[in-house]
Amino acid sequence: MNYDQLALDLHKKFKGKITMALRDTSELTKDKLSTYYSPGVGNVSKAIADDESLLPVYTWTNNLVAVISDGSAVLGLGDIGPKASMPVMEGKSLLFKHFAGIDSIPIILDVHTPDEIVATVKAIAPSFGAINLEDIAAPKCFEIEERLKAELNIPVFHDDQHGTAVVTLAGLINAMKVVDKKLADCKIVVVGAGAAGTAIIKLLHQYATPRIIAVDSKGIVSSSRTDLNAEKQTLLQFLDDGVSGTLDDALTDADIFIGVSQPGLLTPELIKKMAAGPIVFALANPIPEIMPDVAHEAGVAILATGRSDFPNQVNNAIAFPGIFRGALDNGVQRITDKHKIAAAEAIASLVESPTANTVIPSVFDERLVPAIARVII
Amino acid sequence: MNYDQLALDLHKKFKGKITMALRDTSELTKDKLSTYYSPGVGNVSKAIADDESLLPVYTWTNNLVAVISDGSAVLGLGDIGPKASMPVMEGKSLLFKHFAGIDSIPIILDVHTPDEIVATVKAIAPSFGAINLEDIAAPKCFEIEERLKAELNIPVFHDDQHGTAVVTLAGLINAMKVVDKKLADCKIVVVGAGAAGTAIIKLLHQYATPRIIAVDSKGIVSSSRTDLNAEKQTLLQFLDDGVSGTLDDALTDADIFIGVSQPGLLTPELIKKMAAGPIVFALANPIPEIMPDVAHEAGVAILATGRSDFPNQVNNAIAFPGIFRGALDNGVQRITDKHKIAAAEAIASLVESPTANTVIPSVFDERLVPAIARVII
Repeated sequence: MNYDQLALDLHKKFKGKITMALRDTSELTKDKLSTYYSPGVGNVSKAIADDESLLPVYTWTNNLVAVISDGSAVLGLGDIGPKASMPVMEGKSLLFKHFAGIDSIPIILDVHTPDEIVATVKAIAPSFGAINLEDIAAPKCFEIEERLKAELNIPVFHDDQHGTAVVTLAGLINAMKVVDKKLADCKIVVVGAGAAGTAIIKLLHQYATPRIIAVDSKGIVSSSRTDLNAEKQTLLQFLDDGVSGTLDDALTDADIFIGVSQPGLLTPELIKKMAAGPIVFALANPIPEIMPDVAHEAGVAILATGRSDFPNQVNNAIAFPGIFRGALDNGVQRITDKHKIAAAEAIASLVESPTANTVIPSVFDERLVPAIARVII
Repeated sequence: MNYDQLALDLHKKFKGKITMALRDTSELTKDKLSTYYSPGVGNVSKAIADDESLLPVYTWTNNLVAVISDGSAVLGLGDIGPKASMPVMEGKSLLFKHFAGIDSIPIILDVHTPDEIVATVKAIAPSFGAINLEDIAAPKCFEIEERLKAELNIPVFHDDQHGTAVVTLAGLINAMKVVDKKLADCKIVVVGAGAAGTAIIKLLHQYATPRIIAVDSKGIVSSSRTDLNAEKQTLLQFLDDGVSGTLDDALTDADIFIGVSQPGLLTPELIKKMAAGPIVFALANPIPEIMPDVAHEAGVAILATGRSDFPNQVNNAIAFPGIFRGALDNGVQRITDKHKIAAAEAIASLVESPTANTVIPSVFDERLVPAIARVII
């Protein structure tokens, strides 16, 4: 199905995707207005002035996430700027509401340096219960998230990093059961060392310290290279730093390929170099690193993609609604690696008997949000 | 009726006053999600990247106002800070939705200098169709509004200034009919030269160039004083600068008293100094400069207050919903003095035969929003 024209039509028909509504849907009498606004509201303000911890008790911040982007790395479209990113951010808000009942507001930013973005988000942060950073380009996304996490006392979560990492880990946990291997014993090749690749590497290391090789557009990420930026140098501590060379070199005897790179990068020839029972997570979207028919013909044991029309969809919407639901409901101020691992395990556990085509539950599985929210404590 | 406890109860029961909802309320099928989010949404983003003027066609910004405050001058409570201001801002959003169907989002700011506030609002401005500044202290509110109006191409409106000024002018237009005077011939005393007082003075001057005397806590505002800040010095051009002294001096032979000052400031003795048929707008809230029974006993011809339990309520909610409705629907980028005067005339015209107790229509008059929106063009 081609969604291009339908998308334009539906967005125009409804004039966007989200709207605002009143919580009290009974008739707004004169007395109610005097309660919800002046003079009654003054007493509520006084109560919060006396004790700021009452903010989520008396205002909508208890269920409110800011979806923040500067439009610098939007879907596969790249740096299209804040205004063009708005439909995607409004779409994210739709997912928050649809899957987890969470109110969220797209805030698109007309500033682009880490200093400006951090200053702006800090300035508006009291308005929200949590911050979801979205589609902000690497490497600045790392600095922005770290600084905001350090300086704010509400959850800050860059979904392009951690959402993808959590769902990938969930899929790998179940894939290990299918091929009867242990993640700690695996050789994993991660291709693409941007936001998602970096987060996947860190989370896999945290979970099981497997042998990980990262590959970017210049080849294997290793200390022998002189072109690594600060973020990639930091990444070295999580990598098998004894190897250098090309993707070809990296894949020899690898158990797992994780691609967050570009369409068609993985060939049948490369797959044949991998160890027995190769696991391929080809997450480039919408066109994966290898198409399913080609992959299976080349002997791939388990294939996951980012697409909804193939089995095993690595879709961020599997993780983030439950993670934010839990953080908001349980008063969690910081989403840690422990939370991410617990979320991945909760997601994986929903597949009772994983098979090659069911290592990841469907995004429509209604058990997801409560199962994840329960472990974000 | 005492609203204090009821306000706490209702705010807690509903966990705030506003929420978020989806525009398309039909079932969100897999196909719909692929249209509203990836991959379909990418085509909508591309369309806006090609032509940014399509932003309000495809996103909710067409009906979206930011309600922005730093909490520095909230109701009668003063500088209570951003968090404590949230219930008031959420209340404003409730009024926007209830009276004009406008989506609005409270953005409370953890920054307080004009430079920081301007930078923050500019950074997030692409997210919205219009900006409503609320409860920001004078005199910084003047600089903030002027700079944002100059630097943004969406409407920026400080309601505490202009909403009050528009409704006051509307009331005076009808009051003139009741006492058979012309505003241009009147001597007007405005007590309080903060946000509201300043805007009232400027709008009355623009409308009819009457003789206006401003009084602040130090007495009559005149060039003979050495303690005037920059904003009050700018105000001198709209004032009768030939007089100095006290409120007592100012009120001699005055036709109109407008108070945006403090409870009980106006006494029967002072009213007796005014010209025949004195008009008193005692707008201090919740306790006016003079109570109605005392005022009428002292011979006041027409009395308006900010309260809903007396006739002639000067309530900002009479004006701002229609002004923003018109600005959003008609693509107005700047709300000018002409718009404000047109709005005041539209409001006044809804009272067919004004009497002393009906110079201002009720905030519940359903003709208000369309009548005002029609003239914001």
